Amino acid sequence: MQKIYIAGVGQTPVRENWEKSLKELAGDAALLALADANLGYPEGIFVGNMMSGSANHQLQLGALLADWLGMHHREGFGLESACSSGAAAFRAALMAIASGELSSALVIGVEKMTDSPLAEITANLATAADADLEGDFGVSFVALNALIMQRYMYEYGWKTSDFAAFSINAHANAVFNPNARFRKAISLSDYEHTGMVCEPINLLDASPVSDGAAALYLTAAPPTKDRRISVAASSAATDTISLQNRTNSLRLSAAEKSARIAYQQAGITPREIGLFEYHDAFSIMAALSLEAAGFCDPGQAPRLANDGSIALNGRIPVATMGGLKARGHPVGATGLYQLVEVALQLRGETGQTQVEAARWGMAQNIGGSGSNIITHILHQG
Amino acid sequence: MQKIYIAGVGQTPVRENWEKSLKELAGDAALLALADANLGYPEGIFVGNMMSGSANHQLQLGALLADWLGMHHREGFGLESACSSGAAAFRAALMAIASGELSSALVIGVEKMTDSPLAEITANLATAADADLEGDFGVSFVALNALIMQRYMYEYGWKTSDFAAFSINAHANAVFNPNARFRKAISLSDYEHTGMVCEPINLLDASPVSDGAAALYLTAAPPTKDRRISVAASSAATDTISLQNRTNSLRLSAAEKSARIAYQQAGITPREIGLFEYHDAFSIMAALSLEAAGFCDPGQAPRLANDGSIALNGRIPVATMGGLKARGHPVGATGLYQLVEVALQLRGETGQTQVEAARWGMAQNIGGSGSNIITHILHQG
Repeated sequence: MQKIYIAGVGQTPVRENWEKSLKELAGDAALLALADANLGYPEGIFVGNMMSGSANHQLQLGALLADWLGMHHREGFGLESACSSGAAAFRAALMAIASGELSSALVIGVEKMTDSPLAEITANLATAADADLEGDFGVSFVALNALIMQRYMYEYGWKTSDFAAFSINAHANAVFNPNARFRKAISLSDYEHTGMVCEPINLLDASPVSDGAAALYLTAAPPTKDRRISVAASSAATDTISLQNRTNSLRLSAAEKSARIAYQQAGITPREIGLFEYHDAFSIMAALSLEAAGFCDPGQAPRLANDGSIALNGRIPVATMGGLKARGHPVGATGLYQLVEVALQLRGETGQTQVEAARWGMAQNIGGSGSNIITHILHQG
Repeated sequence: MQKIYIAGVGQTPVRENWEKSLKELAGDAALLALADANLGYPEGIFVGNMMSGSANHQLQLGALLADWLGMHHREGFGLESACSSGAAAFRAALMAIASGELSSALVIGVEKMTDSPLAEITANLATAADADLEGDFGVSFVALNALIMQRYMYEYGWKTSDFAAFSINAHANAVFNPNARFRKAISLSDYEHTGMVCEPINLLDASPVSDGAAALYLTAAPPTKDRRISVAASSAATDTISLQNRTNSLRLSAAEKSARIAYQQAGITPREIGLFEYHDAFSIMAALSLEAAGFCDPGQAPRLANDGSIALNGRIPVATMGGLKARGHPVGATGLYQLVEVALQLRGETGQTQVEAARWGMAQNIGGSGSNIITHILHQG
């Protein structure tokens, strides 16, 4: 694929936001990205969103936002792949530019979840599972992840407290991110004394239901040198949608495939990755993601979390702005928050959580219980 | 954009289908397209759908169908732009192939509407409108179209019975389409004596809520000569999402733009178009679509309908397999039914409704009340 650049980024604070409609929330992130790029209107809009039809009674987000932003007559579409909808929109925009149909595009991810009662949100999230094989039996998304975590602990001998380090790291980094939902450090004792959500997943293993929007401005023309962040790799792969059909529920085979292809495209190995924005919707997904991306052997991720490897000065910094766990997880926007954060890191603009000398950053966005996984590698220079 | 071919097509009968789940319905159309192409599995899946999250409690259709079809690990996404979601998925797949990321793709459109009570379907359809400016005030989609039709009659002096010819033509053609919802001819008297839905739109002005799925197999490699149907043009444009913000509610400016660009891409004029699968969700949309695509001046479309121009042997045959009106309108699938029908016409496989010597065929898919319009031109040879 031809070289495509990220000329601008924007994001709204992740929180409960009852003052703005979905359109205004997405529009705010888009306006920030447009101002940051300062290149005028792009030729098209790609919107990542999962549940606005149910949760906000609003679909057709492409035309909606083109209209709201004043991008008269420009084309716009919505992309959906559950929690990886954000990265799906990013990948669709990349392909649109590489095809020559567009020379620039705005990618917006938005989700407004907290207007709905919790039972409705849980039901909306469950639409990412197989309705015939999982949804109809009432299984929730946290339950699917709990099954995986239970099996992981049984198979590799870890205990729940071994997972605390993932959340402690995420919260420690979120303290310095003004857009994070939880700007509060947590301790092992907090983790051990919090409430259970679905055994063995406790409250501090789980990312929060949130409202938020993030946006990136993509262009085929190289921006000025200090903003020269390019997309070095883009790769997507699927796995069985239902957990019960997976040969090995402890391996994210779609992540393994998409990361392997991404490394090939970028011409690098995991060793060159300076930071990794992984999809820590639950601690167990953080672990499986690190393993699938080649940072350690299967079953060994809790060791990386506990020996300091995932810290800002460690071998592979993760969740550098709080991750899904502490920045928050507005599902359709998450993939773009990850990419905005990687871009800001490569631009050297993340202040106290800046990873030194990072030239390559990776973001991995997971849809469903591992059924649709999209990996992007960004490059500074 | 590089030349891309339609190597295979598939469609399920449009009807109330309570025997199959959304997945099975979409899968059936996909299997037919795969068998028709006979080229093995393509590299990716693009699914057009509008309301499965609400109506069928099922999202993540890309991974769902890749899994169900046995296309292990191949990438897949959902595309949404309300009633033009089908053409949006087609366009996204074209751009994916033209970008070089994929060499082939399956495009599937599916909608399963009749499981839900009518009030829910009406609410789901209204998510294509602006929730803040239209939806929250309870305006339905038929009401928006009724406002346009009322104004059109006032402005140009037509009466309701002048619109009957659009529906009579669609039903006459549907008689010969085994996949059509209504295989029954209607008369002017039927039209004049049917019930009112929302004045001036009556039951025979409106396309039926339906279940259905259609699929196309796209490939960069030229298929065998008798199947050499290529995509000569693909163009999308948006307009204001809310009707009240439109400068002129009687002009589909997004259709004018996307048709104009499509003709440029194909290097032809409306004169060369052998058949036009237009988006006759309501008779008034049929009229506006013909005008926007350049087949007559604004306000003159009812004349074309009444003077025989839109018949199979007329100047511009439309709705050759029944159109949305009589074939049926499973919203997210409609854009792909249109493209399947154009492809079959260009292959000369439509039997008694075959348009003689057509080498160029056009399909135009409309999202919302005219806010997201996508035009494709196919070419035989």
